[in-house]
Amino acid sequence: MQSRMITLSQNEIPKKWYNALPDLPRPLDPPLHPGTREPIGPEALTPLFPMGLIEQEVSSQRWIDIPEEVMDILALWRPTPMFRAVGLEKALGTPAKIFYKYEGTSPAGSHKPNTAVAQAYYNKKENVKRIATETGAGQWGSALSFACSLFGIECMVYMVRISFDQKPYRKSLINTWGANVVPSPSNLTAAGRAALEKDPECSGSLGLAISEAVEDAAGREDTKYALGSVLNHVLLHQSIIGQECIKQMASVGEYPDVVVGCHGGGSNYAGLTLPFLPDKLGGKNIRFVAVEPKSCPSLTEGKYEYDVGDVAGMTPLMMMYTLGHDFMPAPIHAGGLRYHGGAPIVSNLIHDGIMEAISVEQKQIFESAVLFARTEGHIPAPESAHAIHGAVAEALKCKESGESKTILFGLSGHGHFDMGAYDAYFSGRM
Amino acid sequence: MQSRMITLSQNEIPKKWYNALPDLPRPLDPPLHPGTREPIGPEALTPLFPMGLIEQEVSSQRWIDIPEEVMDILALWRPTPMFRAVGLEKALGTPAKIFYKYEGTSPAGSHKPNTAVAQAYYNKKENVKRIATETGAGQWGSALSFACSLFGIECMVYMVRISFDQKPYRKSLINTWGANVVPSPSNLTAAGRAALEKDPECSGSLGLAISEAVEDAAGREDTKYALGSVLNHVLLHQSIIGQECIKQMASVGEYPDVVVGCHGGGSNYAGLTLPFLPDKLGGKNIRFVAVEPKSCPSLTEGKYEYDVGDVAGMTPLMMMYTLGHDFMPAPIHAGGLRYHGGAPIVSNLIHDGIMEAISVEQKQIFESAVLFARTEGHIPAPESAHAIHGAVAEALKCKESGESKTILFGLSGHGHFDMGAYDAYFSGRM
Repeated sequence: MQSRMITLSQNEIPKKWYNALPDLPRPLDPPLHPGTREPIGPEALTPLFPMGLIEQEVSSQRWIDIPEEVMDILALWRPTPMFRAVGLEKALGTPAKIFYKYEGTSPAGSHKPNTAVAQAYYNKKENVKRIATETGAGQWGSALSFACSLFGIECMVYMVRISFDQKPYRKSLINTWGANVVPSPSNLTAAGRAALEKDPECSGSLGLAISEAVEDAAGREDTKYALGSVLNHVLLHQSIIGQECIKQMASVGEYPDVVVGCHGGGSNYAGLTLPFLPDKLGGKNIRFVAVEPKSCPSLTEGKYEYDVGDVAGMTPLMMMYTLGHDFMPAPIHAGGLRYHGGAPIVSNLIHDGIMEAISVEQKQIFESAVLFARTEGHIPAPESAHAIHGAVAEALKCKESGESKTILFGLSGHGHFDMGAYDAYFSGRM
Repeated sequence: MQSRMITLSQNEIPKKWYNALPDLPRPLDPPLHPGTREPIGPEALTPLFPMGLIEQEVSSQRWIDIPEEVMDILALWRPTPMFRAVGLEKALGTPAKIFYKYEGTSPAGSHKPNTAVAQAYYNKKENVKRIATETGAGQWGSALSFACSLFGIECMVYMVRISFDQKPYRKSLINTWGANVVPSPSNLTAAGRAALEKDPECSGSLGLAISEAVEDAAGREDTKYALGSVLNHVLLHQSIIGQECIKQMASVGEYPDVVVGCHGGGSNYAGLTLPFLPDKLGGKNIRFVAVEPKSCPSLTEGKYEYDVGDVAGMTPLMMMYTLGHDFMPAPIHAGGLRYHGGAPIVSNLIHDGIMEAISVEQKQIFESAVLFARTEGHIPAPESAHAIHGAVAEALKCKESGESKTILFGLSGHGHFDMGAYDAYFSGRM
């Protein structure tokens, strides 16, 4: 019988992060000052980030040691399991082999703690007392709250209002880890007040919440800012996912033909795929597919150009696929994918044809989510269900062609906080 | 540095269940017919259970093979991780070593799927088309829904009304796995209608919901009944927990001085502790502590006598610690511990002084839950937090005495569906 779970021992957690920057065939375009549009150096970021993270943001080192204190806390849930999706394969009648990497066993239920712990550590090391951040669906805010709780750092979360209202239990989770959370737009910042003045009912966006958190951090001596996706150092920290995948697949004698991840800001997708990049650049036949919501199609319908990361235009300009920093995505349930741009590294690789992207309607996503839940058991987060859908689409192509490809996808989180979205799907309100 | 996670490989999942029945120093008193009070034989259970489970209920075999089809599905989340609670130890300043076994990584987020999968399998094997069950907080109902979904069996869940209202997302989870769920008391059964007639606002109890599910199953040819705790075969299936613990502790050269579990019907507690029983009976110095809610203190304040398992008195009489089958516990948040009796095997061992029990107030439980969340990261279910509290109490005793004991407790599930309870705690509504 085919074993479903593919485990690693606690000694096999990767001890280094993989940094894709030195491997990119075309270097990243430099970030620009949002006012002058002149290239900025790392020092421009010091009001927002500790030096340890800024160094990683621009590092040309391919492998970066994971500090022992970070390893120690990652070991609260890592290594995470990989599974062969035998139930899903059978239901689809596909000759393809489907594997998935499951990040839902972390304390916050998603992949976000991988970078939250690293970021909290580097802030702690430089004596930062307080961190401000934003959160969309709540995964990042709760992950950072968890990490700050373990390192004894105060944490302030600006949560996109629509999710704050739709997902009250994410807020409770943040509180349980001892952090503060307010709905964004809030009246605590100029950016928030401006948005509320324009529209008192504003349901918020990730870009707006970023403006609020950045403003908070920039205005207080004791506070730094933390971002849960997009930036190079965040993708770096998530590389632990793909590295574990490589070991796990090798342990059963497999290697993927295609790797599929959901894409919002890019951290989960990149963490899963980038560790395979050197193989691809070395000539290996492997495809990387990013799956995004039809209602927020930055990679598939956005422009590849310089844009800021937030609504108020306080962050540096970065070269990326963007729908425009004032784009207000529809209130889909995959709140973690409602971001106007893609990570610069992912955008670079998509633009150069090294990675691919597709976009999918919400209803189709939930069809795949329910099929998965009923054949594999695990309840996916709506975000993660985008990856399932992408994998199902690849498996059905194999069914048509008769090819027995090996598909790997990332199940970035569980859906136990998202059951209201499933209710909406079952009741036809979608 | 002390490694936190203690993993097992997928090949180390136990391949047999441990049956404590032949090892009990004093055999169980026989179950009696609720009308005649005469001992009943296994055949009396055939309207409710498939023969495969009835045989296990009375088996005198110490080790029972786990069927390959069950092993295959257990591998969706097993082996589960064990952790050294270094953060908690540090916060308590105790010389004790604390370990915990975490069952929250299962698809339903608790230990319940361990027996749900086995029960669904034996029903499927005997061509049962539909299973009726009850659920308190929703853990069991969702676990059985999950298992039935994978085996293609229809599932009907009677859910205690207070939890049905307090935890709507458990209901959504049950629906996502394709099962039906109604609040209990319902008007679908005579037992439910009688309760509603007496009190239209009746918030229900596990004992009442059992009556409804038993009545449903007894009245339909195509339907059997399933119970998530109490019975010998349920405890048998959970023995996989303690067996994994023994291997995990041995892998780091440890053995517990005390094992602590929360106790509702007894399945989690027994699954954790019983595999250590042969060592204790062989002279090993090891203690077993059951922790129950002060508001439902069956083991600590109940009587050791024959009682039925349900409100309507339809189940056999079993010798156990009981608060009386019509006891209506206060609506505490640990809904899974609101049961009037203890498992016969656990009751037998408590009565004979081989196991111990304590009861704790809800507020103290949440104090320990929050301390744990902020030091260990994982958010405990309110039920599981009883075990944390018991372990903390043992660790504090060590602090006083200076003893460096080894404490193992069972973290039977995550609290991601219970955040409303944390809200109540933080807002002082507890």
